[in-house]
Amino acid sequence: MLVEKKRFDFSAFRFELCGTTISAALGYETYGTLNNARDNAILICHYFTGQSHAAGKYKDEDPLPGWWDELIGPDKPIDTNRFFVISCDTFGNINANSPTVITTGPATVNPKTGKPYGMTFPIFTIRDMVASQKLILDSLGITRLRLVMGASMGGLQAFMWGRQHPEMVGKIITMVSAPMIRPWSIMVPNQLGIDAIRLDPNWNQGDYYGKQPPHQGLLLAFKILLTSTRTDSWAERNFQRNLADPDGREIPHPWKSFNGRYLVETEIEKIVLGRMQFFDANSYAYIAKANTLFDLAEGGETQEQALKRIKAPVLMIIDDSDLLFTREQAEEARKHLPKADCHYYNSQNGHLSGLFDTHFFCNQVKAFLG
Amino acid sequence: MLVEKKRFDFSAFRFELCGTTISAALGYETYGTLNNARDNAILICHYFTGQSHAAGKYKDEDPLPGWWDELIGPDKPIDTNRFFVISCDTFGNINANSPTVITTGPATVNPKTGKPYGMTFPIFTIRDMVASQKLILDSLGITRLRLVMGASMGGLQAFMWGRQHPEMVGKIITMVSAPMIRPWSIMVPNQLGIDAIRLDPNWNQGDYYGKQPPHQGLLLAFKILLTSTRTDSWAERNFQRNLADPDGREIPHPWKSFNGRYLVETEIEKIVLGRMQFFDANSYAYIAKANTLFDLAEGGETQEQALKRIKAPVLMIIDDSDLLFTREQAEEARKHLPKADCHYYNSQNGHLSGLFDTHFFCNQVKAFLG
Repeated sequence: MLVEKKRFDFSAFRFELCGTTISAALGYETYGTLNNARDNAILICHYFTGQSHAAGKYKDEDPLPGWWDELIGPDKPIDTNRFFVISCDTFGNINANSPTVITTGPATVNPKTGKPYGMTFPIFTIRDMVASQKLILDSLGITRLRLVMGASMGGLQAFMWGRQHPEMVGKIITMVSAPMIRPWSIMVPNQLGIDAIRLDPNWNQGDYYGKQPPHQGLLLAFKILLTSTRTDSWAERNFQRNLADPDGREIPHPWKSFNGRYLVETEIEKIVLGRMQFFDANSYAYIAKANTLFDLAEGGETQEQALKRIKAPVLMIIDDSDLLFTREQAEEARKHLPKADCHYYNSQNGHLSGLFDTHFFCNQVKAFLG
Repeated sequence: MLVEKKRFDFSAFRFELCGTTISAALGYETYGTLNNARDNAILICHYFTGQSHAAGKYKDEDPLPGWWDELIGPDKPIDTNRFFVISCDTFGNINANSPTVITTGPATVNPKTGKPYGMTFPIFTIRDMVASQKLILDSLGITRLRLVMGASMGGLQAFMWGRQHPEMVGKIITMVSAPMIRPWSIMVPNQLGIDAIRLDPNWNQGDYYGKQPPHQGLLLAFKILLTSTRTDSWAERNFQRNLADPDGREIPHPWKSFNGRYLVETEIEKIVLGRMQFFDANSYAYIAKANTLFDLAEGGETQEQALKRIKAPVLMIIDDSDLLFTREQAEEARKHLPKADCHYYNSQNGHLSGLFDTHFFCNQVKAFLG
């Protein structure tokens, strides 16, 4: 399936918390065809470090397809022969410097100053992400969604969709997600990552554009993220206590130097360093902030009351080895959601199984979608 | 029980990895009386941020007793009417600046230069800790231990005792510990903490003595430690999504500023900041390093072979909510330990329950000790 990135321009987007209005642009992709009744649309919401390239390839030669390509496409669980699938970039996308992402965030030039916003960019929320997606759907004449589905932070958006626009949302599937950010999740990996970025002297209060960016702090933030989204047994299976460089020629032995490295470290670092030129540290901090601020309840209502506003049937898919979104959280939410089911599996791989181990839940997605 | 800190001087201690020999001193405490046969001794090994003050008070007015005072004392599970209990400070103790700790580490003045060792201090291991304790026991004429017992890093020492000196060790109890540091534990919390300290510009390659120390980096290292040693449900029970300062007078609301704080953050920070003047960042890095380097196997032997050298009966006590040392690890070790039992409990509080929730295992300790 060949796909293309599209661009949506907001002449004036108003952020809910600060009330600031700016002009903005976000990327989005669509797969399949919107039918005449405009009632076969599905919205896919991306995860923390993700972006709108959820399926297909831009060119046949692309080494990899979009991140949920196993789930989305012709004759796949989310069948693009039947459905029109839309996937949007968020504000402050972490891959701000990627040529295939269109986002507006701290790395964007503020037209009023001619310089990147940096930390003067408005603090935004998951609710703002939903509002931006609503405007994109409005422009396509879509007034009803068959399904909103997302993994992790994408799941937060899906729950927020159900709460904000219950009349529009037919069904909700959330993968490795729950409708709550509890205090431990405020810290891990979110606030710890923000702290790591701010600790890097190159961060310079967020004013590093055109200078040396805070790559060390961002790398530490990613290492905190990548260890909290994996597990002890995943690491043991893949790395054991192997050294990064058994001969000690390029990387010293860990017992000889504080610059020494085990394989687990260098392999985790490689995942980040290979894409470091695309990442923006301030954007990472803003996205982490949006996660810490996530709260379904609004205007003094309780979480119970907020959950009861979600009329759509919800399928929560949880990995029992996930440290971030747990069975306990899902069961807590299920008590108050009008129509909810849970599917549990145990990949032993942790949170990231929601992206990489789709065989654990693809049948459930297909059956729930009907 | 009133106790006192004692001091042991090593005229020449040789570190195993680098072969460097230095003069050193470590503190230790003893509780109870060594009998004439010198066969009623028990060794207690301290945890990562701990020190030798395991029980009793120095003065009646001390606000708190030693950290395992619920377990150790007259008529307690480790009954000092019967046993002579010894607890030693480790090299590079993190509380290097505490008046009640005697340690030799990066914060110690190198007699050859007249300046603190900093990062020129020898990289040391859990094996070096055991070797230092052996010398202290030798000086007391103790050739046999009824029990070696420790929590977390103290458990690593206890396993190492069993492997290095099988003829000396009668029994072993390890609390929230396992005889292995697997790759995930290399990272969390150890290497991530080292990275955080090194990221702080005040760290200055470890040369910060007499200058502004790297407190921000050390604080982040501690926050990584304290979140990995607690759980989602612990945080939810204690903090929910409460704000640090609901009026926003002294601390801004989290949605207004990146300096905003939820209660979970300030409460975790308070634990560290209240004792910050005692902590030394380089020492933290060295202790974390010693943990990453922990490996029972030596000279090409497998972990299986190393475990088989432990002749003493072992009781491994594991909290099922512990993210760091897990039931899976304990069961893996049990397969190869000649005599081992496991006791599992679930405090829902995570790793730190090994220090604070002694009611989950005090009966097992008493029964196993006999």
